[in-house]
Amino acid sequence: MPWDVSLPEKRNSGSRLAGEVLGEAVAALDGWLLVDGETAITKSFTFPSFGMAFAFMTSAALQAERMDHHPEWSNLFNRVDVRLVSHDAAGVTERDLALARYMDHVAVAFRASR
Amino acid sequence: MPWDVSLPEKRNSGSRLAGEVLGEAVAALDGWLLVDGETAITKSFTFPSFGMAFAFMTSAALQAERMDHHPEWSNLFNRVDVRLVSHDAAGVTERDLALARYMDHVAVAFRASR
Amino acid sequence: MPWDVSLPEKRNSGSRLAGEVLGEAVAALDGWLLVDGETAITKSFTFPSFGMAFAFMTSAALQAERMDHHPEWSNLFNRVDVRLVSHDAAGVTERDLALARYMDHVAVAFRASR
Amino acid sequence: MPWDVSLPEKRNSGSRLAGEVLGEAVAALDGWLLVDGETAITKSFTFPSFGMAFAFMTSAALQAERMDHHPEWSNLFNRVDVRLVSHDAAGVTERDLALARYMDHVAVAFRASR
Repeated sequence: MPWDVSLPEKRNSGSRLAGEVLGEAVAALDGWLLVDGETAITKSFTFPSFGMAFAFMTSAALQAERMDHHPEWSNLFNRVDVRLVSHDAAGVTERDLALARYMDHVAVAFRASR
Repeated sequence: MPWDVSLPEKRNSGSRLAGEVLGEAVAALDGWLLVDGETAITKSFTFPSFGMAFAFMTSAALQAERMDHHPEWSNLFNRVDVRLVSHDAAGVTERDLALARYMDHVAVAFRASR
Repeated sequence: MPWDVSLPEKRNSGSRLAGEVLGEAVAALDGWLLVDGETAITKSFTFPSFGMAFAFMTSAALQAERMDHHPEWSNLFNRVDVRLVSHDAAGVTERDLALARYMDHVAVAFRASR
Repeated sequence: MPWDVSLPEKRNSGSRLAGEVLGEAVAALDGWLLVDGETAITKSFTFPSFGMAFAFMTSAALQAERMDHHPEWSNLFNRVDVRLVSHDAAGVTERDLALARYMDHVAVAFRASR
């Protein structure tokens, strides 16, 4: 498409993490859980209002576009449930950890309570 | 329009504030200035990133829709300049103060620095 | 909260719709399905990109705040799955139909394909 | 910052366009004007509602993050005024043209009228 002139090359997610390396990386996050045979991570965020929940989603959506790496997520009023996986690696990669860290960072700013 | 069935009646902004009442109300806000012959208030917000600035705008836009009262604002990267006025009252009303208070509240959450 | 001064009273959703009235109302929408014992409606929207999907969500979120009536929804890249229900009526009400109509309207604008 | 692990390198805007090349490129856009000694381009978009205007801004903000190239813009109810410039090139570059084309594309989708 004509406006894509300056977009970066589609980036690879890199290798799937596993075993102790994965376990320790996830434990270093704030409240994320390994699920689906350790191929994905999930977390549920709760905010003071729908407005704050959706502002969180907007902030994360902007970061997802920067990273070209998108979450699976659902929203019900003040709650946002997130699942992260790198489909091209069929598991959890550094990109998922990076997006999780970003979400943790902004959720604190938006005064989320888990 | 057919989806407007449950929208509230268009609300009035109420009376324009003036004099000491207005001065004290604006002074009680966080860094807003009276401008244009005391018919509007302005503030410039600065955030850590474009993403946080736009998340702030999203949060304020959602509140503006709730209140049916919208800001005049501009954005350049991590900065958002806001001007509030109640056009139907040709001045500053309680609605402007309420929207300003909301913006101050969420800007703190988003770690704005003035 | 101090910025809530001009918010509308919390509105009731009104009566739950049922039977032929409900069936005909849902049939008049664009591709919505009755689910959960006819107590909710759902639809899956697909967009040309994540950006368009999230812009659709933003537009619907703003309308949801206007109506004080919020969707249950999930997003995966260019897809948005929506479920609407009026919890205070334990079923589908005019407010759900109104929000569904709004979503159908803007989804066409955003060039959604079902 | 720890979540920046997978972000692209900061990209250059490339060379500033000038003369006939610039004039023809801007003329090929939809209603953009050269301003400020041909160092920037501007356009005013009008939408059916605040909600559609802000959804347009959200869509453009997501693209801006993808491109790491951000607009100067202001919003008043259903109107969005945009100014594009590549500060690192002190003028208009291909990146500005690309972002302008994206905005034109989505504005049509959102049923903007100029």
